[in-house]
This record gives sequence, structure tokens and C-alpha cells, in this order.
Amino acid sequence: MKRRQFLTSAAVGTAATTLATPMLAQSRIEMNIVSTWPRDFPGLGTSAQRLAARIEELTEGRIAVQYFAAGERVGAFDSFDEVASGNSQAYIGADYYWKGKHAGWSPFTAIPMGLTYTEIDAWMKFGGGQELYEKLGDEFGVIGFPAGNTGVQMGGWFNKEIESVDDIRGLKMRIPGLGGDVMAKLGASPVSVPGGQIYENLVSGAIDATEWVGPWNDYFLKLYEAAKYYYWPGFHEPGSQLCMGMNKTWWSTVPAIDQTMIKIACAEENALSMAENNANNGTYLNKLIDEYGVELREFNDDVYEAFGSASAEVIEEARDHSPLAAEIFDSHLKARADIGAWTALSDAAYVNKRNRVLDI
Amino acid sequence: MKRRQFLTSAAVGTAATTLATPMLAQSRIEMNIVSTWPRDFPGLGTSAQRLAARIEELTEGRIAVQYFAAGERVGAFDSFDEVASGNSQAYIGADYYWKGKHAGWSPFTAIPMGLTYTEIDAWMKFGGGQELYEKLGDEFGVIGFPAGNTGVQMGGWFNKEIESVDDIRGLKMRIPGLGGDVMAKLGASPVSVPGGQIYENLVSGAIDATEWVGPWNDYFLKLYEAAKYYYWPGFHEPGSQLCMGMNKTWWSTVPAIDQTMIKIACAEENALSMAENNANNGTYLNKLIDEYGVELREFNDDVYEAFGSASAEVIEEARDHSPLAAEIFDSHLKARADIGAWTALSDAAYVNKRNRVLDI
Repeated sequence: MKRRQFLTSAAVGTAATTLATPMLAQSRIEMNIVSTWPRDFPGLGTSAQRLAARIEELTEGRIAVQYFAAGERVGAFDSFDEVASGNSQAYIGADYYWKGKHAGWSPFTAIPMGLTYTEIDAWMKFGGGQELYEKLGDEFGVIGFPAGNTGVQMGGWFNKEIESVDDIRGLKMRIPGLGGDVMAKLGASPVSVPGGQIYENLVSGAIDATEWVGPWNDYFLKLYEAAKYYYWPGFHEPGSQLCMGMNKTWWSTVPAIDQTMIKIACAEENALSMAENNANNGTYLNKLIDEYGVELREFNDDVYEAFGSASAEVIEEARDHSPLAAEIFDSHLKARADIGAWTALSDAAYVNKRNRVLDI
Repeated sequence: MKRRQFLTSAAVGTAATTLATPMLAQSRIEMNIVSTWPRDFPGLGTSAQRLAARIEELTEGRIAVQYFAAGERVGAFDSFDEVASGNSQAYIGADYYWKGKHAGWSPFTAIPMGLTYTEIDAWMKFGGGQELYEKLGDEFGVIGFPAGNTGVQMGGWFNKEIESVDDIRGLKMRIPGLGGDVMAKLGASPVSVPGGQIYENLVSGAIDATEWVGPWNDYFLKLYEAAKYYYWPGFHEPGSQLCMGMNKTWWSTVPAIDQTMIKIACAEENALSMAENNANNGTYLNKLIDEYGVELREFNDDVYEAFGSASAEVIEEARDHSPLAAEIFDSHLKARADIGAWTALSDAAYVNKRNRVLDI
């Protein structure tokens, strides 16, 4: 029986409508979504809010969505437990925040020297990534789908030039996750500072350097006022995939058509957020340079070699957590070799040559 | 009134169901989709078929989709007229096939030295591309949405090495569209040969060289048997966007919720087909090299300079077609400058450095 059919039949008489009315309220499915992002935060927050609204729209209100930004219901880092326990139905965030629970979560967001957006998307959909993601989720009673991506992040803001590993040694840098572990191996002191406090820490000298996301997001944190050199490309988060994770017991009660709507809403937002980041990063990179005289610097080959060696060690350690972590890392790294070889010959090679010829 | 409500009310008695049955057939919306791709053609054809099935699934059958591969209802190149005239409701294909009707169609598929997948997606969604696409569609009574992408295509198959523009002169090469116009400016003779006849033409020597798509598609055409050198990266189609175009009068009769379902199905397939191409191109590139000893060759800087100059001329000529064509090309080229500068610093730079360090 289809919605249209009911609309037609309802016009014939009021009996069915009258009978059905009390059922309507009961049959709406409640979906409380908690998020790791502040409300209205450009890019991350606005994307999550757009996804929440889209689910209600696509299900024509059969699913009643309530969205809670970080801190509105639980703190950002409590989102996972909130959903795994069944207190809320879903979270939107970055899965590497749960790496303390299982090392296998990191490769579903980003790992140092790992996959870019087009590569992780190919891995998730056609390289076994989604299957492993669900296998890991099973251990915690959650199921998730990719729902956003920041793209390659910038290497960060520094007050001195980084010309060798010597310049990294002793640096107090805000850089979380496995990227921070890599910097520690190179002699830096990685620290964790929430987004809203980065600026003051950098201005006061409490930290010497920081990474955040990319030109669009970094512009609004005014990091250009606190550091001079803006380094590219970041090795630490080459295509951070964001996701929506749901309580699996709840998910199993959602009718098939509404599961489909949730999945397709995530798929749409995944590409939409990447497009939004790419469009805005181009514009805001120009603004940073033209309006604020930001000086771009490229990490040199020696520094990147060091990032590569230290990343391999960090990955090896994370991989040793458990057989499932090893399986996930190995699958991610196989995609890096196979799909990554193709990226080099296609997108990367073409953009290099095109931009050189056209002086872009 | 929602579907769920009707399901609930229907269980109460059979009256509504009985009354509604004859209405059901009347209220289904007929959507005949013609395609420019052969049935079951890997990548292009299978993606179009998946999209057609998805629309029926998402609308829970409110839209009754019939899919016709190339030649099953009309020939591939008659798809546009079939839909503009209202004989069929939609086409799936590559819009640059309609460049004889209006030069403005090409930038919505690909132009030589133009946008890659992530760039064209950012342009369409956040750089004014979709608005211009609809403005152009208005002139023909159609409206379309991106629904697939091949990614950067390979430069093609050659029986001799291309070390300078001299090696291009006199070459009979299968390369359609604006890419063919570029090759003509460099002294080649571009010819148009349907996919199914490329192999025999190359074996017989009727043509000296050909491009097709990428490793996955080219593998199945067995082009490795007919030519030795496989060049990268292609300048001519750096991220061919495929689309679904619909008759606009018909579209205006589709209920809002079903328009939403059609749009989101296209958005999903757009990313899905790109992921599928990237995953398979990596695998099949390895197979071509390992199983058939295909020799990869990189176009050198001099040759790419020549591609760049000739492409600029071809674009200038196409741009002169009309004010709207100029507006579309200018918008595409502005995205190339702004977003393209960001791609170079992010995806391209990162992949270059990562692959060098890791010897991928």
C-alpha cells in the first residue's frame, strides 16, 4: 500500500482517517541525534544539522528527529556512550574520537599518511570498508554510515619555519589523535586543546603551533593573527570522514524504507559536505593570502620522509591492538596501495600538469 | 497523511483498500528513461540501470520506471530530442553529446584542461554550476542533475611513443568532442568511432590511436591487444560528469516529495559511480600491467604545454557561441582557478608526497 493510494482513499470517506489519527502520534519514530560539533559551527556543525533535517524531510516526518549539538544533551566525547547505551539513537561525529575504546575506529576517520576523500569513499563502498565498519560496530552495538568529509587538512600554523625534523623537536603543538602520536615520535609535545581555545593558547604562547582543519574553518578561528606560516599539505588527516552512528537495537526496529532514507541521506551529505569544503577552501585560501598576508609554506621532502617513517610506526602500534584492528588497518592500507596508485596517475598527475601549464 | 498511518488504518478494515485499488494504477507516474549507454555496459551502463531501479525503490513504486538502454527505444544520440519533445521523460548520458545544439553543454560533462570530479562537484553544488545548468536546460525544456562521474580519463592507447607534438601530427586518433578539436589543432585527424568498433579499427590500422575511459573500461575492450603504450594523464576529459536530464513539463507534474527522491537518487549515484570507477581502476590498472605487460607512459611537459595552448583556443571558440555559453565557460574556468588552486595544495600535493615517501 502506498502513500498516494491512501491519500486517494482517504478522500472517499472519513472513517479510515478518524480511526487512524490516534495511531499517528504513536507510530512516529523518535530519533535523538547527539553531535560532537558545536551548534552552527561552519562546515562540521552546519553539515550535521542539515543531515538531521534531511532525515525528517525524506521520511516525511515518520521519523521525528531532534538534534543536539555538543554539550546540549551530552558532551562531545560522551556521544558514543550515549548512543551505544541506547539513551540516544544516533551520533554525528568523527569516529577516531573513540580510538581509546578500540584502535580500529581511527581508519574510518583518517590515519596519518592514509586515504584521501575519493580513496576512502572507494574503499568504504567497493573495497570492503563498510563491511569492516559494521563488524567493528557490532562489538559495541552500533551501526554507522559515512556522512561527511573535510578533505585533506592543512599541515598547520607555525611561528617559525619547519625546514627539518630539528625544527619540530620541542615544539608544543595542538594536534590530536594519531597525528599527535607521530609528532611525539619526532620530538614534539602534542597537546589537546578544544577548538574554541586554540586562538588564545597560540597568542599567549602556551602552544607554539596548531593544526585545525583547512582555510575555510581556520579563517574563522583567526589563526592568521597568531601565527605567520601556514603549512601544506597535512600528513595527519588526509581526508577525515565523518559519520552518523546509530544504536543497532533501535536501527533494527526502523522499517526498511526508513532505513533506506537514513542511508541515502548520509550518502548525500557525505558528498555535499566535501563539495562545500572544497568550494569554500579555495575562496578562503585566497582571502587568507590577499587580506591577511598569510605566508604559505610547503613541507619539504626531508620532513615528509620523517612524517612517513613515524606514521608507519604509529600505525604498526595501533594495528597491534587486536586482530580486528589489524584487519581494518590492513584493508585501509591495501586500498592506499591499489587505489592510491590510480589517484597518482589520474587526479594528482592531471592537477599538477594542468596547474603548471596554466600557472594556477 | 503518512504511509505508516495508512498501513495502520488499513489493518482496521478492508473498505479503504477495496475503494483504493482502482486508483492505484491511475496514480502511478510513468517515467521512461532512455540512455546513451549499452545495456549492462560496465560502469556507465550498470550505473544508469542502478539509478533507474533506485528511483522506483525510493518512491516506493509511486514512480513506475522503465529503462531503455541505447538503441532499445531510440539511438544513443537521439536521447536528448526524445526527452525534450516529451516522448520519454528522462535520459541518462553525457551532456557534451548535445554540444551541436548548444556549446554550453560541454562544461557540464568535461572540457579539455577543465575540472576534476571533486572540483566539478564543488562547482555544481556551491559555485553556481547547477543554476547555470538549469538556465541552459530552460532553453530546451529540460532539467537535469549530476548522476555519475568517470573521473580523470587516461590519455589513450598509442602504437608509438609521443615525445613531442611532432609525434601527434598526422595521427588518426579516435577522440570525440572538444578533446578531438584540440588534437586537430595539433595536426592529428580525430575520428569518431563507437565503443564497440574501436578494437577492430585499431587492430586493422584504420586508426593509429584511441582514447576510451580508464583502466577498468579499457580492459574489457581488450585495447591492450591492439596498442602497446598507455598514456597518462588525459587532458581531454578530467572528470566527465554524467547526468539525468528530464522533460521539464513532466517534472513540474511530479509531486515535491518524489522530485526530492529523484534528486537524491541522482546525488547518491553521482558519488557511487565515482567510487566504483576509482576502486576498479586501481585493480584493473594492476591487471593490465601484470597480466598483459601494458607499458605506461607519462605525457611530458612539452606535450602538455601544447595540449594547454590548443585547449585554450578550443575553449575560446566554444565560448563565442552565445552569451550563455560564455557565462557557463567563464564560471567553469573561475572554479578551475579558485577551487583548482586548493586541489593543488591539498589532494594533489598530498598524494604526490605520500606516494613518493611510500613508493606507491
